[in-house]
Amino acid sequence: MPDNNFEYGVVLTTVSSEEQGKAIAKSLLNEKLAACISIFPLQSLYTWQGEMNQDREWQLIIKTRLDLLSELKTKIQSLHDYEVPEIIALPIVDGSKSYLQWLGSNTTSDLSS
Amino acid sequence: MPDNNFEYGVVLTTVSSEEQGKAIAKSLLNEKLAACISIFPLQSLYTWQGEMNQDREWQLIIKTRLDLLSELKTKIQSLHDYEVPEIIALPIVDGSKSYLQWLGSNTTSDLSS
Amino acid sequence: MPDNNFEYGVVLTTVSSEEQGKAIAKSLLNEKLAACISIFPLQSLYTWQGEMNQDREWQLIIKTRLDLLSELKTKIQSLHDYEVPEIIALPIVDGSKSYLQWLGSNTTSDLSS
Repeated sequence: MPDNNFEYGVVLTTVSSEEQGKAIAKSLLNEKLAACISIFPLQSLYTWQGEMNQDREWQLIIKTRLDLLSELKTKIQSLHDYEVPEIIALPIVDGSKSYLQWLGSNTTSDLSS
Repeated sequence: MPDNNFEYGVVLTTVSSEEQGKAIAKSLLNEKLAACISIFPLQSLYTWQGEMNQDREWQLIIKTRLDLLSELKTKIQSLHDYEVPEIIALPIVDGSKSYLQWLGSNTTSDLSS
Repeated sequence: MPDNNFEYGVVLTTVSSEEQGKAIAKSLLNEKLAACISIFPLQSLYTWQGEMNQDREWQLIIKTRLDLLSELKTKIQSLHDYEVPEIIALPIVDGSKSYLQWLGSNTTSDLSS
């Protein structure tokens, strides 16, 4: 799948509560797997085992480096209460130089530290 | 326009009411043109026929396969009450394998069924 | 950084108040640096000078042409109250032809006018 020669990206995941969202966000920030994470409430409609469902969820918008995605997936899956959490990465193709430098300097990989 | 060799994507559209948003979402899910659709309120500022407008809208975040985009556009346009609805696709460049497999298995094209 | 051979895109920035968000949005629309801007509240968690912060912010989703990004960055930075505002561009890889034509005809560059 990786179609990914982009340095930075926005990773989306949804959670079932604000508390879990903030717990995941703080853990990712503490481990420098993301530099900034936004969170807001929404409703999700989806098909699960053939049934349509409608749940209140919280969306996380995780701004990070895409070379950290593998560690980020592992960390989210370890903290998430869903069996198959949404974890999808959208590419940042351009942006303010100072912001992207800040994003880069506030993220690091355990593998490289 | 299609710049699109990405398998999965996030399609954005806005609607004027929560009811219409949910009606479009349920129709797309029933026809397996999307696997998960999130919806939340926002305000939109835009220029229409030279005038600036500010409306309360609802944003749909449609998670799907980008080879379904043509059918998805037709379905949204048939249900939408705007003359020119926003329908834009952002590429998913990477993500959790299990989630993307679930996304793929919960979407299908009428053309292929 | 520019990884950007995409014509259209969604530019994200966050601001500290709804008023500032709308002021920036109206300025971008007046100068035809964007055709439509959505705004909604969220919470952001981030690291700044080694400290974790949690603020209420407003997210702007700016729909525009990516060849305007340099002017757009300059305009946002001139109006923004942050030292290093988030300004990141996600690519639109496909969409409704009529909407993208509307997007194109409602945006222009000072450099080309």
